[in-house]
Formats: sequence, C-alpha cells, structure tokens
Amino acid sequence: MKQLEDRIIKDGKVYPGNILKVDSFLNHQIDPILMDEIAKELSRIYKDKNITKVLTIEASGIAIAIMAAREFQVPAVFVKKQRSHNIGKEIYSSMVHSFTYDKDYPIALSKEYLSSDDTVLIVDDFLANGQAMMGLIDICKQANAKIGGISACIEKGFQDGGKRLRELGYPVHSLAIVDSIENGIIQFRK
Amino acid sequence: MKQLEDRIIKDGKVYPGNILKVDSFLNHQIDPILMDEIAKELSRIYKDKNITKVLTIEASGIAIAIMAAREFQVPAVFVKKQRSHNIGKEIYSSMVHSFTYDKDYPIALSKEYLSSDDTVLIVDDFLANGQAMMGLIDICKQANAKIGGISACIEKGFQDGGKRLRELGYPVHSLAIVDSIENGIIQFRK
Repeated sequence: MKQLEDRIIKDGKVYPGNILKVDSFLNHQIDPILMDEIAKELSRIYKDKNITKVLTIEASGIAIAIMAAREFQVPAVFVKKQRSHNIGKEIYSSMVHSFTYDKDYPIALSKEYLSSDDTVLIVDDFLANGQAMMGLIDICKQANAKIGGISACIEKGFQDGGKRLRELGYPVHSLAIVDSIENGIIQFRK
Repeated sequence: MKQLEDRIIKDGKVYPGNILKVDSFLNHQIDPILMDEIAKELSRIYKDKNITKVLTIEASGIAIAIMAAREFQVPAVFVKKQRSHNIGKEIYSSMVHSFTYDKDYPIALSKEYLSSDDTVLIVDDFLANGQAMMGLIDICKQANAKIGGISACIEKGFQDGGKRLRELGYPVHSLAIVDSIENGIIQFRK
C-alpha cells in the first residue's frame, strides 16, 4: 500500500538496533485519515471473503480493527491481554510470547463473541515474529471460526512470522512489508 | 443519546452487585454502526471547541477515540497503561487508581503528542469514580493543553466521578447517564 509506505518513510523513525517506530501515526498517536485508507484497502483485499468479524488484540490493533469493521459493517472484537474481571468465565484463552518484554502473557476472549458461524479477518499493527497472530489463530481454532484473512499494517519481512503463517497456508496480506532496515534506510518488498 | 440508551437497555447485562456490562457492543465486541453515531454525537456537542486532539486511555477508549477523531479530522492519541519500551523517555506520566482491581497503575504519554497548542477532547467508555479521567486531565495539565471537552459513553451517575468533574468546571457531557440500577432495571437521567 503505497500511501502507507510513503508515510513510513516520511514519519517513521529508525532507532539504534534498526527498530522502526511509527507511533506518530499508527499506534500511540493515530491518524484517522490514514486509518480510513487502510480500512478501505483491507475491504478491497478481503471483499469476497464474507468476513463476519474483525479480530485483534489490545491495544494497538483496536483502532485498525474498528475502522476495518466499519468498512465491512461487521463487529470488531478485541482479545484482552490480561485477566479481566469483566469478561465472564466462558472464555477462549491462549498464551503469547512477547520478545519485546521477554515474557509470556495470557490472552482471552469471551466465548459469546466468536463461533463456528464466523469468518474472521485478523488485523494488527505489526507482524514480526508472529506470536500475537498465532495466539489469535489459536483463539479462532478454539471457536471453530474460519480465518478469512490475516493482515498487519506493517510486516517485518526480515523476521519470520509472516513467512511461517504463509507456509501454514493462511491468507496473509500485509499492507507494507519492510524487508530491511540498514543505516536508517527502510527497504520495502516489491 | 437515545440510540445509546436504547442499546444499553436492549443489549446491556446487569450482573449481581448491579454491575452493568456492555461488552457485546462497546468494549469487547464493538459495533461500528453505533460507534459512527457516537462519533457524530461527539462532533455535534463539541463542534465549536476547535478540538485538535482526541485523547483516551488504552484499551477500551481507543475505538471511541479513533472514530471521534475521524469526525473531527484530528489525530487520536492514547495514553498507555504500563511502562512501555516503545514510547521513549520524554513522557508525561501520572498514576490512576483502579477500584475494579484495587490497585494503582501508571499511565504515560509521549511528550511529542500533546502540547500547549492543543485543545483536547477526552473520551472513554465509562465514567464512574473518575480516576482514569483525572489521570488524563493531569496529563493535559502537564502538557499545558486546553481541555475542550470530556465525554464518556456511559456515566454511572450514582458514582461521584462526573459530579466532581463538573464541580471542577470541566465541560463534561456523557452520552448516557445511568442514575440507578435496581433489581436489574436501568434508570437513565432525563
């Protein structure tokens, strides 16, 4: 998605260790105009998939999920990252490993909001090692929900999450795939 | 906002202890059609305030914030609830007490995304004791940002957060104010 790639070049920041930060427009401050375009692109890619739910994980995925859900006119659902007093006892749950924080954390979704009747579009801001996506896929499997699509706004193509998900046969379409960051220069996959 | 009140009556669930849950449409599963109407209502209420940023706290506020930001065509910004590796060292920070979990937690916002040039609309899903709102107000004060409005989708009028904020002079307009829940019957403020 050229508009997203251009924005990453313009406003993304590369920090030591070739860490890419996009928190001025995607996941701390969020540009609703770009979000509208992202949602339209997701709608274009997955329009024939009969999506019934857009699923994500709190917190950075929520803005993308609700905007995509708005395009598809279906509910957004977000998986919670910690034990919540508020979602009841009937839950799907899984564990996700965070490489950033080097720990495992539980995720949970009320069983009321995902079932075998659903075809799910899974979205998130980043796809790197794919741990969060695997957790969301696990939740979908527990619900016997179909996976109609998996899309990250930004995939780190130099990490193996996207590759593994594609090898497993999932319909992954990331909107921008960063193949390398070297000396502050971001290269996107053609 | 009649449409929101009607939805609370239709799909809200009252649990023992008169706890109101709206996670089928507002803060676990989210209805984008209702969100569109909420965003339009916020736009109508605060249209003359020259809002430059919509501010919220992760996670439940994010969907409301991005949809409102879309109406105002300004950025949404969300305060993070825990120490993050990813938002840099220059932060505004505050502490919020959670009565639900009976603990204090830190909140933080990168200084890049709020300044004295901003007029802020603060939004969240619920306003009860007002602790989260007070944390967001504290962040705005640190940034010398003006507060153009404070709005929760649902205010628990039988708790004192909204009352205190109004007594402090803040422009609080909650979209639905629940004055009482008794024997499962929800009464809204006229």
